Amino acid sequence: MKRVFTGIAELYTPYERLEQAALAVQDRRFVWVGAESSLPREYRSWPRTDLGGRGVVPGIVDAHTHLVYGGDRLGEYLQRARGDSYEAILAAGGGIYATVRATHAASEEELYELTRARAHLFLAQGVTALEIKSGYGLLPEAELKMLRVIKKLKETLPQRVFPTLLAHVVPQGWARGEYVAMFCQELIPEVARSGLAGAVDVFCDQGAFTLEETRKILEAALSHGLKIKLHAEQIAHTGATRLAAELGALSADHLEQSTPADWQALARVGTVGTVLPGAAVILRKPFPKARAMWDAGVKVAIATDHNPGSSPLYSPWLGMQLTISLGGLSAEEALAAHTAHAALALGRTDLGRIAVGAQADFAVLDSRKALEGLYRWGHLPLWKVFVGGTDCVAT
Amino acid sequence: MKRVFTGIAELYTPYERLEQAALAVQDRRFVWVGAESSLPREYRSWPRTDLGGRGVVPGIVDAHTHLVYGGDRLGEYLQRARGDSYEAILAAGGGIYATVRATHAASEEELYELTRARAHLFLAQGVTALEIKSGYGLLPEAELKMLRVIKKLKETLPQRVFPTLLAHVVPQGWARGEYVAMFCQELIPEVARSGLAGAVDVFCDQGAFTLEETRKILEAALSHGLKIKLHAEQIAHTGATRLAAELGALSADHLEQSTPADWQALARVGTVGTVLPGAAVILRKPFPKARAMWDAGVKVAIATDHNPGSSPLYSPWLGMQLTISLGGLSAEEALAAHTAHAALALGRTDLGRIAVGAQADFAVLDSRKALEGLYRWGHLPLWKVFVGGTDCVAT
Ligand SMILES: [Zn+2]
Ligand SMILES: [Zn+2]
Repeated sequence: MKRVFTGIAELYTPYERLEQAALAVQDRRFVWVGAESSLPREYRSWPRTDLGGRGVVPGIVDAHTHLVYGGDRLGEYLQRARGDSYEAILAAGGGIYATVRATHAASEEELYELTRARAHLFLAQGVTALEIKSGYGLLPEAELKMLRVIKKLKETLPQRVFPTLLAHVVPQGWARGEYVAMFCQELIPEVARSGLAGAVDVFCDQGAFTLEETRKILEAALSHGLKIKLHAEQIAHTGATRLAAELGALSADHLEQSTPADWQALARVGTVGTVLPGAAVILRKPFPKARAMWDAGVKVAIATDHNPGSSPLYSPWLGMQLTISLGGLSAEEALAAHTAHAALALGRTDLGRIAVGAQADFAVLDSRKALEGLYRWGHLPLWKVFVGGTDCVAT
Repeated sequence: MKRVFTGIAELYTPYERLEQAALAVQDRRFVWVGAESSLPREYRSWPRTDLGGRGVVPGIVDAHTHLVYGGDRLGEYLQRARGDSYEAILAAGGGIYATVRATHAASEEELYELTRARAHLFLAQGVTALEIKSGYGLLPEAELKMLRVIKKLKETLPQRVFPTLLAHVVPQGWARGEYVAMFCQELIPEVARSGLAGAVDVFCDQGAFTLEETRKILEAALSHGLKIKLHAEQIAHTGATRLAAELGALSADHLEQSTPADWQALARVGTVGTVLPGAAVILRKPFPKARAMWDAGVKVAIATDHNPGSSPLYSPWLGMQLTISLGGLSAEEALAAHTAHAALALGRTDLGRIAVGAQADFAVLDSRKALEGLYRWGHLPLWKVFVGGTDCVAT
């Protein structure tokens, strides 16, 4: 398949800005990117799509989601808005445990349908690649059930799906040591063998896993050839960020309580620092110091952390806007953080970029201005979304 | 016209929560509100609309918007995200002045069409009543042009429109004293005579009008029988809030820099304190202390402050969510602040409420849960919007 896209008033790669641009796509990848006036002769005879003088950005990459779950936590949301703490609700057997119960109760088919509907909303926001974690199963069979749902989503969604096995919390009724041993000796090997996940994540925090337990789980993951990533420094400062850097994790995520020493560790090894604006704002936590991290040399990414508890966030654009306003990034930096940098958090350099050789995933704004979606708060004028050069959201 | 609405799983009045409720509407007002099981016999034969087990809230009231304008300020938005200040851009002849130039350049018909499209987006967010200010004309004829646009919107929009004459800034090339005199002696009398606005607002702040000038303008407005309101304590603390209370203003709006003494003054006389979360967050200002104001007895309202510069905010739901997370209100309080309290800021007790005698304006969520729209960040599951009992957004 060959196609040329013209009529692009403005384009962000995201690192560079082009005006009056054109793109050539062959076999789902970009083969040429540049000014329309200098489109080489060889592409001029290709089938052409005129985007009508609109703005174009790379497809949005969401490298941290908990998109599969049963039930909702609206009641808990109202409780927290009245002042109850997330930590107290979790400690009392609510929070994550409430979603675990609802996810256990749902069939694989129900979870698939619920998540497919959510992924469709994400597609309509321009999200062309997304990570989806397990972690509301806890018990081995329930974790595998979630991963099978994610596998089916990967096979059927128009978007690119990256499945992650998440060690979320110790299930009620289990001894901590036994659960960690089961996770390392049964679940990780089974997931590696079946290919049900490409990465392992641990919620290393007060109320979840200790640094010591986290190290065991991540080392087991590495020994089975899986990539690793972490929920780090959200509620308490645990040292998880430096562990992520030490072990060569793809990313350390959250970082509300992270310190300059943590940022230096990330910057040194190139582990991505992913901020999750939804969780920070919705839980009324300190907003991650995205500006200082960026200036310290961290590859800063942004993700929705979509989940029914701490971050019922459906819009990466709102996440970028919050990171601009509360985290101090510029609009251009925020866009890079939710596209090219987020792709690095998935271990990919060929996503989230409009560049020769990259996958032809891009979003077309219904505006001449490519950053219109960052300017308008609470209203996204998105026109079309292309994955591998194919229109996935017709309007 | 008579109609009964049933199949309401949950309803907020907003002060009370009902389950399995029903509403009776006659001549565009509620004539009965209560549990469906106790619907009186006399209403049972009326034409009936079953809402299918959905959640219902009062129509959203937006008591502070600058919805009429030409152009956009995306470039300035990007500049500010990189660190330039709103105040410096305004002082350099950008900011509000840029919108003034674009608004002068647009014809009345163009401004009408641009604003109608924006108001349609607001209707799709459940906004059934909104205030619209002038203020990008500055010169007398241009201010009247804006007010004529608002008049035409009032006559044609499905929503209820409340026009306000705004003294925004001193136009370039005018002596301050002459402009204030013209505003008081020509514009206000003309507006009062023609009925083009029901209220007068002044931007009392550093870079705009002084407290002394503000008092002159507001006293002129009062002497012509117009209601008054203020942009108060946004950038600098000027004493505008206490002036608003002293003169019996409908509301003092912004309040980023307001103090406990200001809140006491508002609480004492019942002047509404309107927080504008969009402007606070987008300009990276301190978030107004909504929780403390509420606890001090202020009637706290929330508004979008929609404008192309400091608050390109299209979603009152996002405004409520930001006020919950950053201002400390509960979800129920935020809903009251954008419905019943906002109506008080328009001088109305018959809007923003689901109660016998009130206008039958309400929003139906596509969820059993009436507060679903506050739980989902960045995705509003709204099903239908009724103004005076009539469906205005069919889906
Ligand atoms: Zn997470
Ligand atoms: Zn305003």
